[in-house]
Amino acid sequence: MKNIVTIGGGTGSFVLLSGLKRHPVNLSAIVSMADDGGSTGILRDELGVLPPGDIRQCLVALSDSSDQMRQLINYRFEHGALKGHSFGNLLLSALEKINGGFLEGLEEAVKILNVKGEVIPVTADAVNLFLDLKNGKTIKGEAAINHSFVLEDVGIKRLYLKPRAQVNPHAVKKIKEADIIVIGPGNFYCSIIPNLLVHGVADAIRASKATVIFNCNLVNKNGHTERFTLDDYVDVINRYLGGNRIDFVIFNARKPSKALIKKYGEKKEFLVPFKKEDRAKRNYKVIVTDLLSTVPTQHAKSDVLARHRSLIRHDVEKLAKTIMFISEIEENKDIIRKII
Amino acid sequence: MKNIVTIGGGTGSFVLLSGLKRHPVNLSAIVSMADDGGSTGILRDELGVLPPGDIRQCLVALSDSSDQMRQLINYRFEHGALKGHSFGNLLLSALEKINGGFLEGLEEAVKILNVKGEVIPVTADAVNLFLDLKNGKTIKGEAAINHSFVLEDVGIKRLYLKPRAQVNPHAVKKIKEADIIVIGPGNFYCSIIPNLLVHGVADAIRASKATVIFNCNLVNKNGHTERFTLDDYVDVINRYLGGNRIDFVIFNARKPSKALIKKYGEKKEFLVPFKKEDRAKRNYKVIVTDLLSTVPTQHAKSDVLARHRSLIRHDVEKLAKTIMFISEIEENKDIIRKII
Repeated sequence: MKNIVTIGGGTGSFVLLSGLKRHPVNLSAIVSMADDGGSTGILRDELGVLPPGDIRQCLVALSDSSDQMRQLINYRFEHGALKGHSFGNLLLSALEKINGGFLEGLEEAVKILNVKGEVIPVTADAVNLFLDLKNGKTIKGEAAINHSFVLEDVGIKRLYLKPRAQVNPHAVKKIKEADIIVIGPGNFYCSIIPNLLVHGVADAIRASKATVIFNCNLVNKNGHTERFTLDDYVDVINRYLGGNRIDFVIFNARKPSKALIKKYGEKKEFLVPFKKEDRAKRNYKVIVTDLLSTVPTQHAKSDVLARHRSLIRHDVEKLAKTIMFISEIEENKDIIRKII
Repeated sequence: MKNIVTIGGGTGSFVLLSGLKRHPVNLSAIVSMADDGGSTGILRDELGVLPPGDIRQCLVALSDSSDQMRQLINYRFEHGALKGHSFGNLLLSALEKINGGFLEGLEEAVKILNVKGEVIPVTADAVNLFLDLKNGKTIKGEAAINHSFVLEDVGIKRLYLKPRAQVNPHAVKKIKEADIIVIGPGNFYCSIIPNLLVHGVADAIRASKATVIFNCNLVNKNGHTERFTLDDYVDVINRYLGGNRIDFVIFNARKPSKALIKKYGEKKEFLVPFKKEDRAKRNYKVIVTDLLSTVPTQHAKSDVLARHRSLIRHDVEKLAKTIMFISEIEENKDIIRKII
């Protein structure tokens, strides 16, 4: 079986893993640990735990336990002092406390949730995301950066983790053994890139023999990547990787409904543009295909946040099939070259 | 296998069930639903759920899941807005919300925790405990009653649930099928008697053919049962049962260390006295035997509350063995009568 490593945050990785787990592959999800918003942020502040939110979503995606258990893990309390906390975040925090460490607690969560595959925090260090703007100002924290709309206009001078984070050695091992590495989808500056900021990750990916796939987001984020083309995303990622390491990019060809495009437009969120004519400049292949979800959300009913986050979103199965297709191309690339 | 029904609250039933579950018996724990203190009280107030605390302790006692899972369920958060909440209480509250009812949520908890036996809330009605004193004053709520020290001095006029609670039909079924019913140990006015206040419970116990055993507490509670003898406990229970229904009383014969007795004495808590000479007046048998725990607490390390609650406490195995011994007596009572 092929070893597939995914790199991302919570919501995007959830979609990706939910599809891939139906295929006969070994899955390892490397997950950003920079989240500090919402339930996760409160738990970090009040309990001093590492951020559980993104890890939780990956655990649920790979969990082979009952629907009830998965629903429970995603359940968000709606009232009182517990309001907004997802039950799964509380589970991970309690297990971290009981077992004396996030990685140790995660090991137990994996057993309780009967997780197939591996969920790997990119680092076990308690870090925060910082962003220096070109105007000299600094935005502190992932949530604050996520909610800032001036990144693109003012310009990003530097995005970094503080304190400097050391990569989880298990993540390096999995990257080394990977046949395929899938980066994204996910919040570009708040989930995707923070993985590459962890010392040792970019080196490991560059050194790996894996086929590296970038799953482009469907929609540009207001104030962050508002004017990005597909190529801009790849350029930025390659810069953080320290070299042109992306082999394939997956791009959605199917347009959402006009109503949905309009709704997103009102929030200044537009579909990522792809300039086919720039083909000669590219050192990566672009798979242009229908990736669009046309079914209601796969998220638990109670996870209102996740539902609202992603209305124009990837279809889990279409995405997984495209990755499996790339895997086939790579396996047969000598033959295919002759055919083409 | 004998059907044993226990009636009590959380801490006392935990001890009782932890011992009995090692014996080949069918266990059903009927649990008081009047608790409104601590983590349970906050969850009742803020989320509008039924009280999970006592149920949680019984689930843990009967759970066949891993030590890690049992430790998790008893884990109490120590900081922030979650401070004092036991993880198991949050689990039961989330499951109640997800499944649209406490009993429905409990059914799922039983699966998750791999519970052997049954844990049965005495009622599914949302009730509170009230106490009218003889001076005309009313104490509202189980926690307030628990922390009042004037019950015995002023005198109890009436202890009642509001609104009037209807018994859980499943509890009635189990009482009917019981070979043995064990009442106590537990907080007398706050856990034991509240079960008997639920409409239908006393009738069911009186009508049952079971041998009814009362497990007397080891220590009198300051301001509640401070001047009680063993016989006083039985008299009060029989009054709430509406007839002399207690067949056996289990009484501890082994004295705790002087240091421990002194420590309790400082809190005005003294060992329950037993007046052997009053034998003729009794219509129940008293088993006087060593029931005292001499080992460190069985509670999870994190459950500080439970640990502090019970330092002079029953030994789980001695208690269970005594109940099994009574079961033997009852099974062979025709022969034994001839022998005696």
